[in-house]
Amino acid sequence: MDPLQRLVDLEELRNLKASYFYYLDTKDWESWLNLFTRDATLQWDNAPSIGGRDGQASQKYVGIDQIREHVAYGILHPAQTVHQGHTPILELTSENTATGIWAMEDIVTSANRVLHAFGHYRETYRKVDGKWKIASLYLTRLRVTTTHS
Amino acid sequence: MDPLQRLVDLEELRNLKASYFYYLDTKDWESWLNLFTRDATLQWDNAPSIGGRDGQASQKYVGIDQIREHVAYGILHPAQTVHQGHTPILELTSENTATGIWAMEDIVTSANRVLHAFGHYRETYRKVDGKWKIASLYLTRLRVTTTHS
Amino acid sequence: MDPLQRLVDLEELRNLKASYFYYLDTKDWESWLNLFTRDATLQWDNAPSIGGRDGQASQKYVGIDQIREHVAYGILHPAQTVHQGHTPILELTSENTATGIWAMEDIVTSANRVLHAFGHYRETYRKVDGKWKIASLYLTRLRVTTTHS
Repeated sequence: MDPLQRLVDLEELRNLKASYFYYLDTKDWESWLNLFTRDATLQWDNAPSIGGRDGQASQKYVGIDQIREHVAYGILHPAQTVHQGHTPILELTSENTATGIWAMEDIVTSANRVLHAFGHYRETYRKVDGKWKIASLYLTRLRVTTTHS
Repeated sequence: MDPLQRLVDLEELRNLKASYFYYLDTKDWESWLNLFTRDATLQWDNAPSIGGRDGQASQKYVGIDQIREHVAYGILHPAQTVHQGHTPILELTSENTATGIWAMEDIVTSANRVLHAFGHYRETYRKVDGKWKIASLYLTRLRVTTTHS
Repeated sequence: MDPLQRLVDLEELRNLKASYFYYLDTKDWESWLNLFTRDATLQWDNAPSIGGRDGQASQKYVGIDQIREHVAYGILHPAQTVHQGHTPILELTSENTATGIWAMEDIVTSANRVLHAFGHYRETYRKVDGKWKIASLYLTRLRVTTTHS
């Protein structure tokens, strides 16, 4: 692969995930949903594990309509959220596909509790009409604490 | 814009903000002040908002002399501070200007309280004599907690 | 130095440290140890300081065998750990050597206490057989809190 094009793609993948965090925490849902492919899957674990539990995620949503209804306007919209991502390990697997692992921290404050967790996003990406999108996201946890607020 | 020069500029902008955090928390004030343009503005909010409050910042300082006196040697020097930045969304708006949004976390410990906050730096940059500088910085908050120490 | 090669090297150095964090917290010890040179030194402070204490580290390990025995399989393996790194200041000092400062946060939970700290990794890197490795790491602290769990 051309080394300059590879750097451009890595930069765009970092920008994609930076936008994911920004739109998520500022509740710009349509911009956020537009970062996913239409057939995207979104999964996460609530309990800690080392490296994920082979598809036994606590929550799983398939396709952009489920993600819009249940995640964006369902779980996330009423909460005060902070999501931060760190030190990605990105790999271009073809001209139009890539994988990534991002370290993360989140704080989700709802009416009666504060969830504070640390873990990893395990993701795949696909270039659609020249633009990188998130094709799948599985969030695993290293540490989870919950307190009443 | 030349794609290689664009990547070099993005790298320098990341390095500028990395230096901002490092000099700030190690209290190397003259190196820190040298990262700003002479006419820089520095603003921040103490209370949470989604996306900033249109110039109604809680604190505002204009020009490097105010930033030196009131922020560096005023508020920050006596405190133990941790400032960390994440996943920038950087945009080059011309050869010599750029914008950036950085996710952030800070912990500021003074004599009798600990401020722990999460938010975003909303910044503009300008190249002065071939070197990127921070021209304006507005820090908005997603979440703020204060405890007595 | 060739500007494209410089960007490729910086990308590889970021990937090296991203792998350091990932292998560490998922306890993939042989992959983690493989990120260091055989003569690597690993040091850290337990108490806060501004900018390190000139070699007076609280803990010091020399060579990959000491790091394997005392750090990986000694201190770290039984603990639940979260280590996150931010905004590196990287400098290529020759074709095969580099330095870096990474802001960091860690949470180390052992049987009866939780250590939560913030600080900086101060590192040197060396290219061995075409691959960047960590040659020395000194972790200094800005803030340390310990609670009983």
